Amino acid sequence: MIAIRQARAEDWPALWPIIEPVFRAGETYAVAVDIEEADARTLWMDTPLRTFVAVNAADGTILGSYFLKFNQPGGGNHVCNCGYIVAADARGRGVASALCEHSQREAIALGFRAMQYNLVVATNTGAIRLWQRHGFDIAGRLPGAFRHPIEGEVDALVMYKRLVDLADR
Amino acid sequence: MIAIRQARAEDWPALWPIIEPVFRAGETYAVAVDIEEADARTLWMDTPLRTFVAVNAADGTILGSYFLKFNQPGGGNHVCNCGYIVAADARGRGVASALCEHSQREAIALGFRAMQYNLVVATNTGAIRLWQRHGFDIAGRLPGAFRHPIEGEVDALVMYKRLVDLADR
Repeated sequence: MIAIRQARAEDWPALWPIIEPVFRAGETYAVAVDIEEADARTLWMDTPLRTFVAVNAADGTILGSYFLKFNQPGGGNHVCNCGYIVAADARGRGVASALCEHSQREAIALGFRAMQYNLVVATNTGAIRLWQRHGFDIAGRLPGAFRHPIEGEVDALVMYKRLVDLADR
Repeated sequence: MIAIRQARAEDWPALWPIIEPVFRAGETYAVAVDIEEADARTLWMDTPLRTFVAVNAADGTILGSYFLKFNQPGGGNHVCNCGYIVAADARGRGVASALCEHSQREAIALGFRAMQYNLVVATNTGAIRLWQRHGFDIAGRLPGAFRHPIEGEVDALVMYKRLVDLADR
C-alpha cells in the first residue's frame, strides 16, 4: 500500500538518493547534471508551494515524491506545475500514477484551475503515455528544445490539463 | 533612427515609467499587477543574462527594452527566453521589430539555438502577428492559462523559433 504525505525536512537524506541519479542522468529533467545537493534541495523542498512523498505504508520507506508550484506569477498563477520522481526500485508499481492523481486533487484544493508540464522530453515515452492516461494533452511540441546526453537535441512537449472547466467560475 | 545598446543601471529611472503601466495593466505579462518597483527592476535588469534598450539615436530617449535569459537550466539551456516592451508613445514605429531582430542576433552570438516565448496572451493579437512575421511558430496553445483583467481566462500561446537548424552542430 502506498501512502502520500507532505514531505518533512528530515525526509531529505532519503529523498536525495532517489532524486540524485535522475538529475545526474540528465535525460528527463532540465536541471544541471552537476547540480549541488543544496541547490537540488532548494529546488525540490523549498521553492515549491508543496512537496509530498509517497511512502510504503507498511514500513515508511520513501518510494517517490512530487513538488507543486505556481507555473507563472500574476495572471498565470491559477496554473500550477509539478515534478515527479519515483525511486528506481519502486517503478512499475503505480507510484507515479498515485502521485499524479494526488497532485491534481491537491492542486484543486489549493485553488488551481489547470496544471502544466513545461518540458516533457519527447524520448520519455513512458511518462508521456502516463500523463495522457491521467488526462493531460500534448499542448505543444518544441523542436529540439532538450539536449539529451545520448540522443542530442530532442523535442520537448508542453503538456496541460484543465482541472476546472473553463466555464466554471 | 533607433539605436540598441545594453541597458545600464542608470537607465532604470527612465525604463520604469515605460514598464510600470504594462505590468500594472496585467493584460500581456504574467507579472503581479502590484509588483514592487524593486522586484520589477530585479526581474528586468538583474535576473536576465542581458538587458538592452532601444533609444532614439538623436536624443537618447528610451523607446523600449528587452531582456534575454535562459528559458530552462540543464538540458534546456540552449533555448533562451525574451521579454519586450515598447514605450506607449513610441508604438507603431518598428521598435518591437528592431528589438526582436536584435534579440535573435544576440541570442545566436551567445550560443543559443532556439528562442521560446512561454506565455503569449491570445488576445494580444498584434504581438502574435509580429512574432510570426519574425519567424516564430505557435508551438502550443494553453486553454485559459492567462487571467485577463477584462476578458477573464483566455488562452496563452507558446511561441518558438529555432535560431540554428536542428541538424547543425
